[in-house]
Amino acid sequence: MTAQPITWRAYPIDLPLRDPFTIARSTRIVARDVIVELTWRGLTGRGEAAPSAYYGETVETVLAAVDRLGPVLGDDPYALDAIRSRWDATLRGNAAARAALETALLDLIGRDSVRPAWRLLGLDPGRMPVTSFTIGIDTPEVMARKAAAAKDYPTLKVKVGSGSDRANLAAIRSVRPDATIRVDANAAWSAREAVRSIESLLEFGLEFVEQPVAAADLDGLRFVRERVPVPIFADESCLRPEDLPRLAGRVDGVVLKVAKHGGPLATLRLADLARALDLRIMIGCMVESSLGIAAGCLAGPRADHVDLDGNLLLAGDPFTGLELTGGRWQLSAAPGIGVRPCADTPEVKG
Amino acid sequence: MTAQPITWRAYPIDLPLRDPFTIARSTRIVARDVIVELTWRGLTGRGEAAPSAYYGETVETVLAAVDRLGPVLGDDPYALDAIRSRWDATLRGNAAARAALETALLDLIGRDSVRPAWRLLGLDPGRMPVTSFTIGIDTPEVMARKAAAAKDYPTLKVKVGSGSDRANLAAIRSVRPDATIRVDANAAWSAREAVRSIESLLEFGLEFVEQPVAAADLDGLRFVRERVPVPIFADESCLRPEDLPRLAGRVDGVVLKVAKHGGPLATLRLADLARALDLRIMIGCMVESSLGIAAGCLAGPRADHVDLDGNLLLAGDPFTGLELTGGRWQLSAAPGIGVRPCADTPEVKG
Repeated sequence: MTAQPITWRAYPIDLPLRDPFTIARSTRIVARDVIVELTWRGLTGRGEAAPSAYYGETVETVLAAVDRLGPVLGDDPYALDAIRSRWDATLRGNAAARAALETALLDLIGRDSVRPAWRLLGLDPGRMPVTSFTIGIDTPEVMARKAAAAKDYPTLKVKVGSGSDRANLAAIRSVRPDATIRVDANAAWSAREAVRSIESLLEFGLEFVEQPVAAADLDGLRFVRERVPVPIFADESCLRPEDLPRLAGRVDGVVLKVAKHGGPLATLRLADLARALDLRIMIGCMVESSLGIAAGCLAGPRADHVDLDGNLLLAGDPFTGLELTGGRWQLSAAPGIGVRPCADTPEVKG
Repeated sequence: MTAQPITWRAYPIDLPLRDPFTIARSTRIVARDVIVELTWRGLTGRGEAAPSAYYGETVETVLAAVDRLGPVLGDDPYALDAIRSRWDATLRGNAAARAALETALLDLIGRDSVRPAWRLLGLDPGRMPVTSFTIGIDTPEVMARKAAAAKDYPTLKVKVGSGSDRANLAAIRSVRPDATIRVDANAAWSAREAVRSIESLLEFGLEFVEQPVAAADLDGLRFVRERVPVPIFADESCLRPEDLPRLAGRVDGVVLKVAKHGGPLATLRLADLARALDLRIMIGCMVESSLGIAAGCLAGPRADHVDLDGNLLLAGDPFTGLELTGGRWQLSAAPGIGVRPCADTPEVKG
């Protein structure tokens, strides 16, 4: 069998949000992501890059990175370690671009071997945690309305750090008295502010608090953790493998995301590392289509918590194939990562 | 497609050694291992358990463990996470038994998908380090004769801790002036003895020293490391993921073995963890046939060093398919883990 090079193309997509989405540091009405398509032996594998300016990436840096990483893909999508080595020698960083490429490679491998990627990874589909549904910062009335509308989701993730957190949480709790509520401050507070703010929210019942302080303030994470009776998770503080040993003992858990770490496999490796360090694991996401969420689902069954709802916030989803049952994403029996463009014809089940 | 249970059988094999093999704590003339065979959909996958009394395992405990772990294999060899969960709920520990079963599952998966296991794991066959060849403790004359005979191996691993280490090393160095020499004390020394002993061997040129002190003496490892100018690797001190964070900063590297950790995948996970903790990695082995060594080869390309020579010490090898070229094991193109019983017919290349 003669070697066939893997060919690639990448293009931006606009993902308009159903409603404006506000977190402590920004508001968005449309997300712009990049879709990467790899072709090999007549098969197409796809992945999504959700760039975040916070992590130094934009649609343009992703496209530029794919232009550098694509030419060294080689002729065998299975050769992931060799591809990663060539990427490392070509261009460092650019996790969102790599995430799209790694996802597309896994999609290709699954399609080539006519097996779902999750099965090739040995995952247990019965271990997928329920996803939370995120309520962005808004007026208490709007937040309560959204929380009420999200009645199919037993767990809500509420963005905090706005200054009206108490009113917001009170409004949400009034309409969702039984919901599990986790909150995410997106690095909004100083350590002392965090302690005060979290204490002021305790009466509403918090499952855990994500990233109360600045990403670099690791001692601040510990300071907060030692003073409040709810678990603390690190998100913005957790990017690379070497971050995890530093976080162990300072937080209770970490938020891992395909777009932050460079793909589903990179995320699974961090999950193993977190587990060994006795850190709890949540798989999070960016605002992304079902393609990016499907990539996140490949890490879900090895996690304790899942917050994979970026596609649920969209006005429309260009990909299809991912199904939610009882708040849990179902790992599809389709070959590859289990989603396809909406315009595409249904695939033969593997 | 109706579900078919995975069936299993396990049987002991005697592996007579070419010569008696002595390390600091024991001498062997024959190794007794266990072969596990799994059958599913007409395919057979095989794995080897090399029990070590030091780690609490014997041929009999392996057979007894397989009797407990076999019935919960289920009907899908790909479902590794679910199988591992059921094993954890059934019987803890028993790493060698699990290693045989995990290897056999990988062999089955590879045969079912008609792809070599290393390819499904994304490994880079070009990254396989040269294996060292081990010289057991004996008289200086015998050790020198064996070292001279091992001229195809550029790296020797010399067992130390006998009291005549200086004479032994001098004899070996005289016949192999250019060889890379690593030494393994198998926990023979106290920390102070280790420093003195290693200092007395420095003139012979050491690449690194394995396990100078008792497994539990982690501070002893650091004590030695701070006092001698050669890297220190932990072997007996390194069994479970939670051992690695404790070893980081106390040693330079760790020796990982399929039989110690419960299989090639368990070993690859530890390798990722070691990498994140900035520990160097050597993949070691027990005295085992080519089947067990092939399982170790699945971790080789992610390691810095390889000591996979257990099958080279045997008077005869019941498995075939693994080839050594220029001191490096070659990852075979055959489906599965790439070895078959010697009596078996050659397989179709995938």
